[in-house]
Amino acid sequence: MELGMSLRGDDASVHSITLFVALLCACLVIGHLLEKNRWFNESITPIFIGLFTGIVILLTSAGTSSHLFIFSEELFFIYLLPPIIFNAGFQVKKKQFFRNFVTISLFGAVGTLISFVIISVGCLQLFKKLDVGFLELGDYLALGAIFSATDSVCTLQVLNQDEMPLLYSLVFGEGVVNDATSVVLFNAIQRFDLSHITSSIVLEFIGNFLYLFITSTLLGVGVGLLSAYIIRKLYIGRHSTDREVALTILMAYLSYMIAELFNLSSILTVFFCGIVMSHYTWHNVTENSRVTTKHAFATLSFISEICIFLYVGMDALDIEKWGVVNKSRGTSFGVSSILLGLVLLGRAASIFPLSLISNLFKACPADKITLRQQITIWWAGLMRGAVSMALAYNQFARSGHTQRLGNAIMITSTITIVLFTTVVFGLLTKPLISFLLPMRQPSSTAGELPIDKSITEPLLANGNGNEHEQLLANGNGHVHDQESCMTIPRPTSLRMLLTVPAYTAVHYYWRKFDNAFMRPVFGGRGFTPLAPGSPTDPMVLQ
Amino acid sequence: MELGMSLRGDDASVHSITLFVALLCACLVIGHLLEKNRWFNESITPIFIGLFTGIVILLTSAGTSSHLFIFSEELFFIYLLPPIIFNAGFQVKKKQFFRNFVTISLFGAVGTLISFVIISVGCLQLFKKLDVGFLELGDYLALGAIFSATDSVCTLQVLNQDEMPLLYSLVFGEGVVNDATSVVLFNAIQRFDLSHITSSIVLEFIGNFLYLFITSTLLGVGVGLLSAYIIRKLYIGRHSTDREVALTILMAYLSYMIAELFNLSSILTVFFCGIVMSHYTWHNVTENSRVTTKHAFATLSFISEICIFLYVGMDALDIEKWGVVNKSRGTSFGVSSILLGLVLLGRAASIFPLSLISNLFKACPADKITLRQQITIWWAGLMRGAVSMALAYNQFARSGHTQRLGNAIMITSTITIVLFTTVVFGLLTKPLISFLLPMRQPSSTAGELPIDKSITEPLLANGNGNEHEQLLANGNGHVHDQESCMTIPRPTSLRMLLTVPAYTAVHYYWRKFDNAFMRPVFGGRGFTPLAPGSPTDPMVLQ
Repeated sequence: MELGMSLRGDDASVHSITLFVALLCACLVIGHLLEKNRWFNESITPIFIGLFTGIVILLTSAGTSSHLFIFSEELFFIYLLPPIIFNAGFQVKKKQFFRNFVTISLFGAVGTLISFVIISVGCLQLFKKLDVGFLELGDYLALGAIFSATDSVCTLQVLNQDEMPLLYSLVFGEGVVNDATSVVLFNAIQRFDLSHITSSIVLEFIGNFLYLFITSTLLGVGVGLLSAYIIRKLYIGRHSTDREVALTILMAYLSYMIAELFNLSSILTVFFCGIVMSHYTWHNVTENSRVTTKHAFATLSFISEICIFLYVGMDALDIEKWGVVNKSRGTSFGVSSILLGLVLLGRAASIFPLSLISNLFKACPADKITLRQQITIWWAGLMRGAVSMALAYNQFARSGHTQRLGNAIMITSTITIVLFTTVVFGLLTKPLISFLLPMRQPSSTAGELPIDKSITEPLLANGNGNEHEQLLANGNGHVHDQESCMTIPRPTSLRMLLTVPAYTAVHYYWRKFDNAFMRPVFGGRGFTPLAPGSPTDPMVLQ
Repeated sequence: MELGMSLRGDDASVHSITLFVALLCACLVIGHLLEKNRWFNESITPIFIGLFTGIVILLTSAGTSSHLFIFSEELFFIYLLPPIIFNAGFQVKKKQFFRNFVTISLFGAVGTLISFVIISVGCLQLFKKLDVGFLELGDYLALGAIFSATDSVCTLQVLNQDEMPLLYSLVFGEGVVNDATSVVLFNAIQRFDLSHITSSIVLEFIGNFLYLFITSTLLGVGVGLLSAYIIRKLYIGRHSTDREVALTILMAYLSYMIAELFNLSSILTVFFCGIVMSHYTWHNVTENSRVTTKHAFATLSFISEICIFLYVGMDALDIEKWGVVNKSRGTSFGVSSILLGLVLLGRAASIFPLSLISNLFKACPADKITLRQQITIWWAGLMRGAVSMALAYNQFARSGHTQRLGNAIMITSTITIVLFTTVVFGLLTKPLISFLLPMRQPSSTAGELPIDKSITEPLLANGNGNEHEQLLANGNGHVHDQESCMTIPRPTSLRMLLTVPAYTAVHYYWRKFDNAFMRPVFGGRGFTPLAPGSPTDPMVLQ
């Protein structure tokens, strides 16, 4: 006779959660063991473990079921995505990001549009020759949006922010803008009447896009500033580290949910909230809170990523969808191949021309994107991931329409493409990058024990950027960046505008504004809340 | 025409989550502002905010609904409770806890049984005079179990571990054992055939209880040791802070879920997992991971607590249940009063006699529990919380039987008691404690700025205990504890057994065993993984 505490919920969910948590632990340990491996990366391990688990479940359940959970958009968008994007904003090197802002927007917005058009038109033309069942115009356009969404999660794990700062910020920044663009596109397709496209609808669409971009960014900045203000004010008086950490996490999440509530681009919102929080809020909290938030956000993001890939791996063997497709394997294979070709082509058609355009506007040769770098950017954005899956389910599996042949083929093709690009392209990425861009030994960490690297790296990475920014703001010396064009003469505001690149001038005035108006209110580096104006305050020393 | 990302899940859940997160933020800020308040504590603020929100929702929805979520056992037991109990084990002062282990077990297990019997028999006798609808024998016994479950969450916020270490460890340790006992009791009542209670059933029940207690503890210890071993082994070689943090959190959660899976007492499991992790695992990770895990666990626990109380506050106004009860208000009031009286009586009948027994076995007067302390312990365990709610819903609201008068009255009475004890008794606790036990100024932190307290306190608290333990283990000096009976002569193993209290002897041999066999394998303080046997290793120096 058993006695115990099985009173909470059904046993099935306890089984699933236990197995899932155990798999997560396995991924962490195996991922660690494979870290030095030339081929594997942090995304492929969970996919393989997920696939393997799927097979085991399939065998033990005698072919009736293959997954622990059904892919749920809500789980993905409400719980797993926010920490990943927030952490990205929180840890991004702000200077690099803003310096390349124009190029990033070009790649992210215009590039995605190009890719969208090529994939949509390509599908419309090529699918006619295959027997794919009936698809509407909206379905073709949706395919364009689905397969224009790159997988920023996977990409980030391949590139190293410290070794390739320019590439990292380009690829990553593009990923964030691309996420937003493709989701906005997808929604537009589902909501606008596509039977008669007029110029006014196109204009409305562009207006909507800009409106979304601006309001989402402002919301993220607003919530970030609010959190900085509250924590700075609360800091005056006694306080608790845990409360600070809790407030930071919850307000970041709140920004995401408010954006969701108002149908804004929550990805953009939480990304900018992360940037603002790392610039102001993070400096207002205690030393312990700084370490905790930094690593807690990174850990949350890390776990979410592994969850997503584990999920994708397990979901890949869903019987129902493959059962419908089974009769027309040839068609399914054809569709997947066509889509894969279009993905490769679409990205090539956006990255290479746009890089050319971007290079035209850069005076300094060191800032230009070389061909090898272009190939890397092209390759790094080929992977398709969880966003594509979520959009495909939304379009083709709504209210259980997977039974229709056309829809089932689209779902299975999406899974095929996601798995193929993540696994095959993913496996090839590390070797490709080390072939195209032979790694320079980073001089600053060369003398360190490998064991120390992970301890100092996250904080160091941020610290470097800030010190650099401060030097720039002080403006009392020549600063030599990795890019030699950054040599700045002692600036007097007018001469500076004429002699230095536009970015630096904007940055210079931003620093002035930041120091004069923003930091005194919202805190930030050099404005520790307890001692504004104290002898330790660098602003006073200056 | 709106365009955006509302594709994920229904809007209602987005609304609810957004509002809930906003309320959490409000609780954090308001809680901070009221921290110095003499009456309010961290539990009452969210209950009031929850009640207020419930009223607003009730008014805006024109009386149709009063809550954002329906109280869900799964949410509570799978997501909110584990971090609270784990953190309690992780942060508990191990030495105090184990020194008072016998007293704690006495209060937690025997005390809960006494309280259970008194409440069950009392209800059985007193409810006959009221018109409460039909209740089975099982229902009466269930009431005993439901109202024997004290609210350890609320208690912890009132007592201070540093100011009153003995009281804290007694009340808190009792709470953990009490949680386990009452849940096990509750399950036994639901599963055993109660129509003919024989002595063999009683024996089987006791056997089951011991089996559960031992296996649950061993499972927690096992998973904790496994995590220490894995992290220690992985540490050899390069590693990442985030992976360490993720692995620690996930393995802690895994222990809880495995216990759930095998119908063990998951509360006990995760509590002992926390103790083992703080003793071994925590010392095997990097400095940054230590700070991060410490605060991340505390923060998670803190957020979970606020969630629970916010939830209880919002759920208190559930229309459906009150509607049924409305016709027989007098009965409902009578039932609540009887239950409240029995709760007070049951706890008095367990604490005071058991304190007497406990005092009989203590040689040193300083270790005895004074009458004032007994009153504080009695009072601190009067609050009833989320566990009572969850058990009551399980017994009386299963498959929507709230429509039955008897069940509806029991549910509303539970809510009444939980709210009344938490709010009224909670409000009175701080004044009562400062009246009964006038606070000594803690000498070690007296010179510090109040602002620094929160930074150093959590780590200091642990550090103190460990240093203390190490001194004891080295055994090369007289150690004066707060309790003067702890003066230990230079120990030679035999003489020591005869002259010092039993606890100290057990502790001495445990330290020997720990240093000789456990620490070399599982790490821990003084066995930092990189340099076992190096000149910095205190064991080598010794």
